[in-house]
Amino acid sequence: MDFKIKSVSNKNLAEALQSKIDQKTKPIGALGSLEKIALQIGLIQGTDRPILKNPTIAVFAGDHGIAKKGEVNPYPQEVTAQMVYNFLNKGAAINVFCTQNNIDLHIIDAGVNHNFNGISDLIDAKIDYGTQNYQEVPAMTKVQYENALKKGGDIAKQIFHNDCNSIGFGEMGIGNTSAASLLMSYFTDTPIAECVGAGTGLQPESITIKQQILSEVYHKHNPTSPQEALSCFGGFEIVMITGAILKAAELKMTIVIDGFIVTAALLGAHAMHPEVLDYCIFAHTSGEQGHQKMLAYIGKTPLVNLGMRLGEGTGAAIAYPIIKSAVAFLNNMASFESAGVSDGN
Amino acid sequence: MDFKIKSVSNKNLAEALQSKIDQKTKPIGALGSLEKIALQIGLIQGTDRPILKNPTIAVFAGDHGIAKKGEVNPYPQEVTAQMVYNFLNKGAAINVFCTQNNIDLHIIDAGVNHNFNGISDLIDAKIDYGTQNYQEVPAMTKVQYENALKKGGDIAKQIFHNDCNSIGFGEMGIGNTSAASLLMSYFTDTPIAECVGAGTGLQPESITIKQQILSEVYHKHNPTSPQEALSCFGGFEIVMITGAILKAAELKMTIVIDGFIVTAALLGAHAMHPEVLDYCIFAHTSGEQGHQKMLAYIGKTPLVNLGMRLGEGTGAAIAYPIIKSAVAFLNNMASFESAGVSDGN
Repeated sequence: MDFKIKSVSNKNLAEALQSKIDQKTKPIGALGSLEKIALQIGLIQGTDRPILKNPTIAVFAGDHGIAKKGEVNPYPQEVTAQMVYNFLNKGAAINVFCTQNNIDLHIIDAGVNHNFNGISDLIDAKIDYGTQNYQEVPAMTKVQYENALKKGGDIAKQIFHNDCNSIGFGEMGIGNTSAASLLMSYFTDTPIAECVGAGTGLQPESITIKQQILSEVYHKHNPTSPQEALSCFGGFEIVMITGAILKAAELKMTIVIDGFIVTAALLGAHAMHPEVLDYCIFAHTSGEQGHQKMLAYIGKTPLVNLGMRLGEGTGAAIAYPIIKSAVAFLNNMASFESAGVSDGN
Repeated sequence: MDFKIKSVSNKNLAEALQSKIDQKTKPIGALGSLEKIALQIGLIQGTDRPILKNPTIAVFAGDHGIAKKGEVNPYPQEVTAQMVYNFLNKGAAINVFCTQNNIDLHIIDAGVNHNFNGISDLIDAKIDYGTQNYQEVPAMTKVQYENALKKGGDIAKQIFHNDCNSIGFGEMGIGNTSAASLLMSYFTDTPIAECVGAGTGLQPESITIKQQILSEVYHKHNPTSPQEALSCFGGFEIVMITGAILKAAELKMTIVIDGFIVTAALLGAHAMHPEVLDYCIFAHTSGEQGHQKMLAYIGKTPLVNLGMRLGEGTGAAIAYPIIKSAVAFLNNMASFESAGVSDGN
């Protein structure tokens, strides 16, 4: 797969945007992070009047071989498929938040260990019925990896062609905090023990077991390239998000990054194409302990920190109105001149 | 003025709400702060199916005697009136964010040093053409204080009778970070120097001057009761917000607290009726340095920290969708049982 991603840097436009921001009827800098987001989205779209069109969240679901044994996950593997049905029936948190904030929601079967029988509303991109258990073999083959990366990109492209220029990602996959921890260890060069947290609710003694298991897994594979790390540790949903992020950046979409798992997918994209960060807005800091270290590694601070650790893209959905506010103030606030307000000089 | 404010505590309802929250299709606690907000609003409304009706932000504008001299404020006093016109013309940040988030916006002249000639859309509650300069005399008389407190309460009541049960407050008043710093010093028993920040944009050397001036002012008046502190330091918009907060709590409304100035008004309400905190949701941490200490004093953590320091109620408006998300998940998410999802036990 080849992605062509350009940096958004444009000195003239950046100055024009900053000047427009500074002329709004407010003290210089008084809108804090919103001002940075407005500037960034202006640069992404190459205009001083950016708009967010048909914001969309794509939730990729996939199963993990290791989760069949239940040693690293408090919920049984079946919950992945059960939650996919919950998404399709509009009962999950991500459904509620997307409805509230007018975000289109797409659910993708990236590789759930269940036959959905072509059920409508579910996008079928299944690579396999779950990954292999990386305690024994790599989570996926090279061909599966290439396929997952490409399918992720294709889905982002399809969403882009539905007149969308702002995309967020979510995931569902029992056991996927383990894959994300392994990826974090590889991409940020952090000892695996520091990358492992409670996931969706492990007790302290189980976290210790998770650390031991993942430490063995890490050293068994010892990957030497981003592609190898993603193939060895998976999962299909994570690699698909990596591909979707890369394609979205190529298409100059604004990309809203959710929590621990999606950031792990981004680390893969970033290792291959560092410019991808120019397109990313970081929605929230996950309650999963490794997330803050991942963010520190790429030098980013998310918009909100609400102690959420649910996945599904819920952090992206919750933060979306703030991103919308950034674009709204840039386009709709009066300037000192237009409003006849003294600017204090 | 007498306000009757009851604590919302209700053990049975709290348990019923927590159980409802825990049965949603998510790991226990995985929605972080949203779960606490859902519980709180349920208790405020006395139901496990709370709803937010016609959310409203009331922005109170007033002038401060000290601001005529320009020693504590980088913008001239005239900007208060100019910004009121900007609010009425829908050009300010608060207009943009309220429109985006479907929040009703009311602008109140609490005491601006300008004759608005009965202009429509502006609620006339003017106490006077600005407060007195507290470098010389108390900012307002006892009668003015009582009037401001009552008018604030009346406005909250009027909004409540427009079928609203969720209210936020904003303010506009050149020089009002000085009044808020003085109030903070009194209510939190913190040396005045630690309560003084950059306001809307003072340079470091000017902050030192502001600290010296306000230190003299503080010791000149040395108030000995909440009422005296509010009368001595003002302003009309702050006292009116104090009255509105107390009345809103009496009416069992959900109260969204904005930044530094509104929290100063709340400290006054809290000193008179500590139970008022049960009704308050803290929207954002202001970039104004004293705000964090105020919040620490009452033991509260706001929803977002975006480095905003604009006032107008913009923090409340930005955080409102998150509050709405809390109520939405409580009412609209499926339970493990209804969705047929294994809860891991």
